[in-house]
Amino acid sequence: MKKILCGVDIGGTKLSVALVDISGKIMDEMTDFDHAEKSEQGLTDQVSANIKKLLQKNKLSESDLIGIGIGCAGHIRFKDGVIITTSNLKGFKNYPLRDAVQANFTVPVILDNDANAQAFGEFRFGAGKGYNDMVFLTISTGIGAGIIINNRLYRGLTGTIGEFGHTIVEPDSELTCTCGNRGCLMSVACGMALPHLFEKKIKEGMISNLQLPDGFEYSQVDGKLLKRGLRMNDPVSKSIIADSGRYVGIGIYNIFQALNPPLIVLGGGLLSWGDFYMDQIRATFNEYVHDMIFDPIDIRVSEIGCHAGVIGAASLATESC
Amino acid sequence: MKKILCGVDIGGTKLSVALVDISGKIMDEMTDFDHAEKSEQGLTDQVSANIKKLLQKNKLSESDLIGIGIGCAGHIRFKDGVIITTSNLKGFKNYPLRDAVQANFTVPVILDNDANAQAFGEFRFGAGKGYNDMVFLTISTGIGAGIIINNRLYRGLTGTIGEFGHTIVEPDSELTCTCGNRGCLMSVACGMALPHLFEKKIKEGMISNLQLPDGFEYSQVDGKLLKRGLRMNDPVSKSIIADSGRYVGIGIYNIFQALNPPLIVLGGGLLSWGDFYMDQIRATFNEYVHDMIFDPIDIRVSEIGCHAGVIGAASLATESC
Repeated sequence: MKKILCGVDIGGTKLSVALVDISGKIMDEMTDFDHAEKSEQGLTDQVSANIKKLLQKNKLSESDLIGIGIGCAGHIRFKDGVIITTSNLKGFKNYPLRDAVQANFTVPVILDNDANAQAFGEFRFGAGKGYNDMVFLTISTGIGAGIIINNRLYRGLTGTIGEFGHTIVEPDSELTCTCGNRGCLMSVACGMALPHLFEKKIKEGMISNLQLPDGFEYSQVDGKLLKRGLRMNDPVSKSIIADSGRYVGIGIYNIFQALNPPLIVLGGGLLSWGDFYMDQIRATFNEYVHDMIFDPIDIRVSEIGCHAGVIGAASLATESC
Repeated sequence: MKKILCGVDIGGTKLSVALVDISGKIMDEMTDFDHAEKSEQGLTDQVSANIKKLLQKNKLSESDLIGIGIGCAGHIRFKDGVIITTSNLKGFKNYPLRDAVQANFTVPVILDNDANAQAFGEFRFGAGKGYNDMVFLTISTGIGAGIIINNRLYRGLTGTIGEFGHTIVEPDSELTCTCGNRGCLMSVACGMALPHLFEKKIKEGMISNLQLPDGFEYSQVDGKLLKRGLRMNDPVSKSIIADSGRYVGIGIYNIFQALNPPLIVLGGGLLSWGDFYMDQIRATFNEYVHDMIFDPIDIRVSEIGCHAGVIGAASLATESC
C-alpha cells in the first residue's frame, strides 16, 4: 500500500529531497549545495537521481510513493508545471520542470511555488489541521503566501497567487522592493529590507549597542543580528523589529478584510524574533480590526517549522487524495 | 416551469423589489422611499408585502419564482442570514432578516451583502459571463467588493469578505475612514472622501473654476460635481479624480497580487467619471504590475449598470442552480 510522499525543495542555496510519511514526518532526507549553477537539464537529472538514490537507500521503490511534490521559489505557472522565472536558479526561464522530472517517473509529479507548498504542508500537517480554509504567510528574506480554500490550494489564473508581499502598503515610501516598486510590504517588513531599515535608523540618529565588527557594512544586517540585538535590548534592533511587526500586522489586517479567513498562519525565519515580534503583529491587527470582527480569527505560528520546505513540497502529492 | 427571480435591494434611501428573468432583465420593479425608519419587523413586513404585490400585479404566484435574493449594505453573517450591523437602517443589530422573510414564503430566501450580490449579478448576467473566477469592485459612496471562485461567491468565515475598501494603503494618511482607521482605500478614493479631498486641494492653493453657489460647503462635494468639473476642465476636480484613480489602481494591483484573478470588474457611481478615470486606474495598475504579469488580466467596467442592486440580489437566487 502506497503510503510515502516525496518532497523536493529547490532553494537558492540548497536542494533538499525527503521521504515523508503520511503524518508529515521526515523519514530520510538528502541535501545538495551545488544545484544552483546547473543547467535546466542538469537540475532535472540531479532531482531525479536524488529521489532514486533516496528510495534505494531506504530499500523502497517508486511504487511505494503516492507522488512527488516539488516546491520552488519564483513565479510558477501551476497548470503547465512551468518555472516562469526564479531568482534562485541561473538562466531558468519558462522551463517545464514538472514534465521534465515526470519523464523519469510514473507516479504523479506536482510543481508549485515554495510558499504555496509550505502553506499546504501547514494545512495538512501543522497549524492548519482541522480547518477548511486558511492563509499562510511566510516572512523570511522575502514574503510569500498560500491560500487554502475549501481544502485546496487556490491558485488563480497563472498560479502566482498570494503575493501579499508585493501589495502596496506605503505608496510614498522611499524603500524599493526587488520588484522595482516602492512601498510594497516586502520593501518595509522582510529580511531583504533589514539593511536599509538599519541604515535609516542610524542616519536618523539612533544609537545601536550591538558591538559591530570592524569593516561592518549595512548589507550584513540580517534577522540573526537583530535577534541578538533584541536579546541585548538594542534600541535600533527593537525599533526595526517593531516596525516590521507593525507592517506585517497591517498585512494581516488587509488579508482579514480581503478574505475573512478563519486562520492565518505565520512562518518563515523572522518568526524566530519570538513573542516581541508576534505581540507587535497581534497588537497592530487588533488596533485596526477593532469592531469590524464578528467571529474570532486565529493567528498562529507555523508548526511544521524548519523543514517546512520539503514537508510542504511533499504535501502537494496529497492534494488530490 | 419556474423561470423568474425576485431581487430585493435594501439601500439607504430606497427599497427596491424587482422581478427579473433568467437572462437578468428586469420584468417589473417597485420602489419605496419610507423603509429606512421602520422597525425590524416593519421592514420584514414591507419587503414581504411588496414581493406579493409585485407578483399579483404581474399575474404571477410564488410558485413561478426560483427564489428571492436580498442584498443589503453592511455586515451580513451569510450562513445565518443575519444583518450584524448596517448604517442604512436604524437600530438593526444581529437581526435574522432572512428567516423573518422566509417565514412568509416557501421558495428559498437568500440574504447577502449588496456588493456580493452585485458581484454575482455581474458574474451571471454582465461582464463576468464566461468566467469561472472574478473580483468585482464597486466604487461609490463607499467601496465594496465580491469574489467569485469556481462559479460561486466566496464568503470566508463570517461572510464579511472582499472589504478591499478597508485595506490599508496609506497608514500615515491624515484621512480617516468611517471605520475609524486612517489610510484605508475608502478614506482616500471613494465618494465619502471627496469633500475632504476637495478642501485639501483648495487649502494647498489650487484654484477651482467650478462656479460654486453662495453658501457652498465642502460637504456638498460629490461625484456629480466633480463630473461637471471634469467637463469644464477644472484642475481641482481633475486632480481629485486622478488621485482617486491612482488609489483604485493600487487597490486593483493589490487584488491582482493577492488573488491573481482573470477578471476584475469595476462598478459603482464614480465610474460615471468615464475614460479619464479608467485611464488613470489602468495606467497605475500597469505601472505597478510591469513584468509581474504572465497572463492577461481583464479589467472591465460593469455591464449590469444602474439596476445592479436588484439584479444582483435576484442573481443570488440562482447561486445553487
